[in-house]
Amino acid sequence: MNFGIVTIIGTGLIGGSIGLGLKQRGLATLVIGVGHRKLSLDKALEIQAIDEGTCDIGTAVERADIVILATSVDLIPGLAKKIVPSMKRGAILTDVGSTKGYIVSQLEDVLKENGDTCYFIGAHPLAGSEQRGVEFALPDLFEGSICVLTPANRSPKECTKKITDMWNALGAKVKILNPRAHDEIVAYISHLPHFVASGLTNVINDEYWGYGANGLKDTTRVASGDPELWASICKQNRLALVSALRQFSEEIKSMVKEIEEGNDNKVLERLQRAKSVRDSYLK
Amino acid sequence: MNFGIVTIIGTGLIGGSIGLGLKQRGLATLVIGVGHRKLSLDKALEIQAIDEGTCDIGTAVERADIVILATSVDLIPGLAKKIVPSMKRGAILTDVGSTKGYIVSQLEDVLKENGDTCYFIGAHPLAGSEQRGVEFALPDLFEGSICVLTPANRSPKECTKKITDMWNALGAKVKILNPRAHDEIVAYISHLPHFVASGLTNVINDEYWGYGANGLKDTTRVASGDPELWASICKQNRLALVSALRQFSEEIKSMVKEIEEGNDNKVLERLQRAKSVRDSYLK
Repeated sequence: MNFGIVTIIGTGLIGGSIGLGLKQRGLATLVIGVGHRKLSLDKALEIQAIDEGTCDIGTAVERADIVILATSVDLIPGLAKKIVPSMKRGAILTDVGSTKGYIVSQLEDVLKENGDTCYFIGAHPLAGSEQRGVEFALPDLFEGSICVLTPANRSPKECTKKITDMWNALGAKVKILNPRAHDEIVAYISHLPHFVASGLTNVINDEYWGYGANGLKDTTRVASGDPELWASICKQNRLALVSALRQFSEEIKSMVKEIEEGNDNKVLERLQRAKSVRDSYLK
Repeated sequence: MNFGIVTIIGTGLIGGSIGLGLKQRGLATLVIGVGHRKLSLDKALEIQAIDEGTCDIGTAVERADIVILATSVDLIPGLAKKIVPSMKRGAILTDVGSTKGYIVSQLEDVLKENGDTCYFIGAHPLAGSEQRGVEFALPDLFEGSICVLTPANRSPKECTKKITDMWNALGAKVKILNPRAHDEIVAYISHLPHFVASGLTNVINDEYWGYGANGLKDTTRVASGDPELWASICKQNRLALVSALRQFSEEIKSMVKEIEEGNDNKVLERLQRAKSVRDSYLK
């Protein structure tokens, strides 16, 4: 299996891990990395996540069979507008953004304006960590993880298949969703935990942190993620996130009421339900 | 250093780890384990967490220089009432309970009623995991962790020193607090994260769990802890926990308002504050 020339725009943790995975598995003829910081490209070259690195996005995309936008979600629509006119006829544009509704609708417009000479398949690999930068990239980052694809109606089936094959080859299990369903799900399983962890972190007094053990460390881990990246995700998934946060607030409110009223059976039931749910899904 | 005959009541994760630690480091003449399930005592004997196991609590405590109550917090006052009359003059009773205010006041009464022939030093090792049972016990569980001691005014200094020495010998760093300060701190760094993780777990739809990655796994990990144990902790630290949950609710409410109003700078500031706090305390 070979996916030809793959250009990765943004060689950070995710972009770098895709490059490493493609190269170590011999899945690409050439991997071109694009970044605006030479230092980061040099690091990507050094760890062999890419074969060539350039700041010149135009020439980097015109040769590519697949172009992967692996930047912060807020940059994706603008970059697409800039590169689609330079892309090869029939090439596939894809991304790794944590939101899909806004990005897919913006990119569908960009493609239409350019006469549908190339295609877009939205993608979101559900992997990563609170760390950023190509220095944390791993060839097996996606092994055993899920990658959601959100092909639009106008995307030909062969393109969806090609991107599915690529993610399978990188070790991920592909699930196909519509962008709205994707955004609803990630609001709960990814964006809500992030804002909950950040909120929890913000209410703990400075002097108390020294007493924190593994429980606190794990519960708040994602709060160490990149704030700009998460603020951009929040902007693009505002409604679903607000709705998830409100439902969570109601749950906390009910807990407080039960604890305060000494309704110990209800408190116990709530904790039992949580344990049983978590144990059945995350063993 | 030798702490003589140590009787551990409750040979689960914590009790078993204390036994393993004492025995592997040669810190006790004899470690006696007390439990009401023979199976659990047999397991403790098998992994050599204890030298002797018995269901007869009376004879197990009368020889002991130190008796450690390593059960769920709700059992501690009742067990103390039962064993203090059988304890050796001058022996030290201690515990590992996650709450201290209620336990210390109850145990002070028990000691007074028995003519202060032995002593009590409240203790709370801030270590453990969502797992339970002696099969998860580790001799190094407390290595690098904190153990809070809450000696009462009536506890002689030598007793506090002895229990401090024991925890230091097990690898923990000892901090002395009054019971109220302890309960306030753990409400934030341990009990709040537990209820937040359980609340988060309870609002996620069954069909969404399959998409969860490491972030969700870590943020909700503690929700897999023993519900009975946590419900008991909640009962004994109700006021401090309610107050922590309320402050957390206010934080979430402010987040929701800012996200909804599109106040993106405020959202970003909140995420930045959380990252900077967490990065500075939990590296």
